[in-house]
Amino acid sequence: MNLKKLAGEKAVEFITDGMTIGLGTGSTVNWTIRKLGELVKQREIQIRAIPTSQQTSYLANELGIPLVTFAQSTELDLTIDGADEFNSSLDLIKGRGGALVREKLVAAASNRLIIVADESKSVEKIGKFPLPIEVVPFAWEVTAKRIEGLNCVPTLRRVNGCPYVSDNGNYILDCSFGYIENPAKLERTIKLLPGVVDTGLFISMADTVIIGTSNELKVLSKKN
Amino acid sequence: MNLKKLAGEKAVEFITDGMTIGLGTGSTVNWTIRKLGELVKQREIQIRAIPTSQQTSYLANELGIPLVTFAQSTELDLTIDGADEFNSSLDLIKGRGGALVREKLVAAASNRLIIVADESKSVEKIGKFPLPIEVVPFAWEVTAKRIEGLNCVPTLRRVNGCPYVSDNGNYILDCSFGYIENPAKLERTIKLLPGVVDTGLFISMADTVIIGTSNELKVLSKKN
Repeated sequence: MNLKKLAGEKAVEFITDGMTIGLGTGSTVNWTIRKLGELVKQREIQIRAIPTSQQTSYLANELGIPLVTFAQSTELDLTIDGADEFNSSLDLIKGRGGALVREKLVAAASNRLIIVADESKSVEKIGKFPLPIEVVPFAWEVTAKRIEGLNCVPTLRRVNGCPYVSDNGNYILDCSFGYIENPAKLERTIKLLPGVVDTGLFISMADTVIIGTSNELKVLSKKN
Repeated sequence: MNLKKLAGEKAVEFITDGMTIGLGTGSTVNWTIRKLGELVKQREIQIRAIPTSQQTSYLANELGIPLVTFAQSTELDLTIDGADEFNSSLDLIKGRGGALVREKLVAAASNRLIIVADESKSVEKIGKFPLPIEVVPFAWEVTAKRIEGLNCVPTLRRVNGCPYVSDNGNYILDCSFGYIENPAKLERTIKLLPGVVDTGLFISMADTVIIGTSNELKVLSKKN
């Protein structure tokens, strides 16, 4: 059973006619986008979408999903995206795919954020993998040193030996903090540092997580 | 009497042999750079410098001031820069020239920040002119709306009708807050917003302000 497909396709049920939605990036949400593409093609639903990456934009275009930009709409009804890790409070770590800044901007502009993931992304405490932090390239060495001072090991993300450059023209530092006891506090501390554009910590942003498990679909929802 | 020249040249006295210094951007600090260039040419002083902009880099190169990058040194002894406004607590507004992010990174990497300005930049409360805020171009409309919610009027900076693009590839919003009662709090609030790279508020960063007045030079220093 493909757990990513299971979770990804389920999320389409939350999309209703007339919505403007945000489309995340990654292998699980790609199943959402493909399923959505079918419904659009069969004229069962009319929606418009804002993509969080060039990759998602290509896929949506291929499938005939109408795309808009924030010049057309600054408020989204719903965003569906993946996550690298999530805990039972629905705090997330995102950014392994390098799209964290656009993903956070789209999520923050949405009335509702639905995360789709397979069960391997579920953790008791987030911080199993390094936390991605997007930084301004100028003086990144200083910014890395400052982040290191928060008790982690930052590594500049590289592709074929060269620094990885995000869609926004910035660098990404993958920062091994180990398990993060207070994600909200850490997020604020890092975001306030000069040179930091944003972090992969998504705190109190997700409303629902749809999890593909080997037995069934599980749905976690935010406690109000 | 040229008050900018008076203040700018005075700052050179704070530079000593062997220092690594940050060089700011603008018409007042250009007098510092020119004076420093003379001393370097006459071999009266040996220093190395990191520029905060392409403009300053060109000027320093022309004058034979040795330039380095943060790959060579992540700590600076001293930075000399200008400001658009300063108050008696040495809180600053910077960024009218568009170099605020690099200026803040260089200032934050420095053991000491000296500001040079003519007396017209001295204000009782900062906020006489709009506050520049550097933002990620993607979803800038959403970021502007969120900043507007903090009770100001944000305007996208334009050059010949097109958005102004910073050295870091970002946009600048000039935000009319009016006089700012609590600059430290406002700075934190804005910096925490998704899409914001940094603000032109420099709080508790300046150690000394050298002011050219029509009577004399005044020097304000941080109270410890």
